[in-house]
Amino acid sequence: ARRRDSAGIGIGFYGNSETSDGVSQLSSALLHANHTLSTIDHLVVETVEKLGEAVRTELTTLEEVLAQRTELVAATRGARRQAEAVAQQLQGLAFWQGVPLSPLQVAEDVSFVEEYRWLAYVLLLLLELLVCLFTLVGLAKQSKWLVVVMTAMSLVVLVLSWGSMGLEAATAVGLSDFCSNPDTYVLNLTQEETGLSSDILNYYFLCNQAITNPFQQRLTLSQRALANIHSQLQGLEREAVPQFPSAQKPLLSLEETLNVTEGNFHQLVALLHCRGLHKDYGVALRGLCEDALEGLLFLLLFSLLSAGALATTLCSLPRAWALFPPSDDYEDTDDDDPFNPQESKRFVQWQSSI
Amino acid sequence: ARRRDSAGIGIGFYGNSETSDGVSQLSSALLHANHTLSTIDHLVVETVEKLGEAVRTELTTLEEVLAQRTELVAATRGARRQAEAVAQQLQGLAFWQGVPLSPLQVAEDVSFVEEYRWLAYVLLLLLELLVCLFTLVGLAKQSKWLVVVMTAMSLVVLVLSWGSMGLEAATAVGLSDFCSNPDTYVLNLTQEETGLSSDILNYYFLCNQAITNPFQQRLTLSQRALANIHSQLQGLEREAVPQFPSAQKPLLSLEETLNVTEGNFHQLVALLHCRGLHKDYGVALRGLCEDALEGLLFLLLFSLLSAGALATTLCSLPRAWALFPPSDDYEDTDDDDPFNPQESKRFVQWQSSI
Repeated sequence: ARRRDSAGIGIGFYGNSETSDGVSQLSSALLHANHTLSTIDHLVVETVEKLGEAVRTELTTLEEVLAQRTELVAATRGARRQAEAVAQQLQGLAFWQGVPLSPLQVAEDVSFVEEYRWLAYVLLLLLELLVCLFTLVGLAKQSKWLVVVMTAMSLVVLVLSWGSMGLEAATAVGLSDFCSNPDTYVLNLTQEETGLSSDILNYYFLCNQAITNPFQQRLTLSQRALANIHSQLQGLEREAVPQFPSAQKPLLSLEETLNVTEGNFHQLVALLHCRGLHKDYGVALRGLCEDALEGLLFLLLFSLLSAGALATTLCSLPRAWALFPPSDDYEDTDDDDPFNPQESKRFVQWQSSI
Repeated sequence: ARRRDSAGIGIGFYGNSETSDGVSQLSSALLHANHTLSTIDHLVVETVEKLGEAVRTELTTLEEVLAQRTELVAATRGARRQAEAVAQQLQGLAFWQGVPLSPLQVAEDVSFVEEYRWLAYVLLLLLELLVCLFTLVGLAKQSKWLVVVMTAMSLVVLVLSWGSMGLEAATAVGLSDFCSNPDTYVLNLTQEETGLSSDILNYYFLCNQAITNPFQQRLTLSQRALANIHSQLQGLEREAVPQFPSAQKPLLSLEETLNVTEGNFHQLVALLHCRGLHKDYGVALRGLCEDALEGLLFLLLFSLLSAGALATTLCSLPRAWALFPPSDDYEDTDDDDPFNPQESKRFVQWQSSI
């Protein structure tokens, strides 16, 4: 029973650390996804603000400076329209804005629960180890009160083991939803929670060649508008600066803004592409299904083994008790040869039988 | 000694599986990076071919159809120049083309070595388990030949343990290069192996806001050229189609090509962004430094413990030998009480002392 029990405890520690590994993979994937989503929002807000600022200040200054030549004012107005169009298209890209589900919150909740689960298991394992140890000590020292206490403790741990077994089985069944063909399930779940269109969710959860980027249209339009602004600014620089030197400063500043916007735009394209988020999804699923589920199954095995070992111990302790020498305060006497040889021999036989 | 040995074997199995985990993380990160790099090359080749095809066929057809109106021919020529410029810019983006280092090859080599390392350790652990088991059997049965064989085997395993300890220590020291402040080291190593410019390597290995995308310029130029082609095609459609209906078919086909090119371009922007490859780099390093190094340290501990246990066993086996009853073919006789009581008592004392 002792050997089986210590093997069970080893399995329990392994399962506990595997589960913890899997859950930490899940929450780091969620944190990474959250970082991607919030960077998208942040970039969109920053770029739209920058464009709005440019429209309000530099383009207005330019229009005032070039007021004498209507065709240049028209070009400036064109650039303004394009900039406003870009800002509007970009705003549509921040698809996670206003979504009630925050991956950060989910990750924090998961980590919080996991922390306590891990601690509870470590305590249970230590308790079992102590019970196992003190039972052995009680048997070796033939101390009745220790055996009685340990029998009671074994009963408590047995109940805890059965309880944890039920919890583990329930969690394993719950996790299996995420493990066999999870895409449809997760997609529906996310759609319910976030209210996002299925186009976007399909793109991120499936992420294969067959599914077109739902932001493709917006990205292409923004890109064309940005290129148009660029060519209009270049035209203005060629035509206007020789005649109106004061137009140079706002034009240069506008080109600077345009460059920054183009850099942000490339970052947005990269962040919006399904690869990054889909990989996080894969990592989260793998954490749940490979490590966490495997760890849970080991914990289940541990609970089974320890329940078995504890039941055996509980059944055999009364037998050991019957074999103890009758004196109750036996361990207080300090004889050199305190054993009743007859009892001792039977006790050793019992010990070797378990 | 037995308890310590079996703990050592448990540690060895754990260390072996941890190391294997870390190495498989490394090779999966390398495979992912390889996939990214080869997708970039593939996309560039595909897009450049598609553009070249469009220039050769549709644009040539258009020029022939519109030959009567020189300003339309000029617009077509402009579109052709822009398409050629895009193709040229895109070709510069396939930065891994012609690089002699293939992450796929590295991943395959690493997996190959790891497979054999894993197998060798499992065999060593099983051998140690068997030696441990049969030594106990030999002692319990007081079989001299088994004890002699196991003494010889212990010696072999002891030598193997020392050898593996040396290898593990050397590997752990080698790995530490990748673990404390690895960026500079890995950057220099990769630069030597690939001959890529340090701009590109810095961008991918450090990947922070301070480092600008080395492809930014090319991406912006391609993007502007693509937008220019689009506006030229739209102009042609407006001006030419009413007069030359046969121009419609090549124009539609060109717009189709342009759409595909823009989709590919967005994918390229996403793939070229440092996030994906930098994440692979992070995963590879974490696999090496967290899991593989930790596993190696456990294996080192296992080697130490098993060397200690084996040395103890080797020292105490001759003592046990001296305590065996003199008859050599002892285990063949099938008496009910074959023990020389005196020897047996001393032997039990020796057994409990180890």
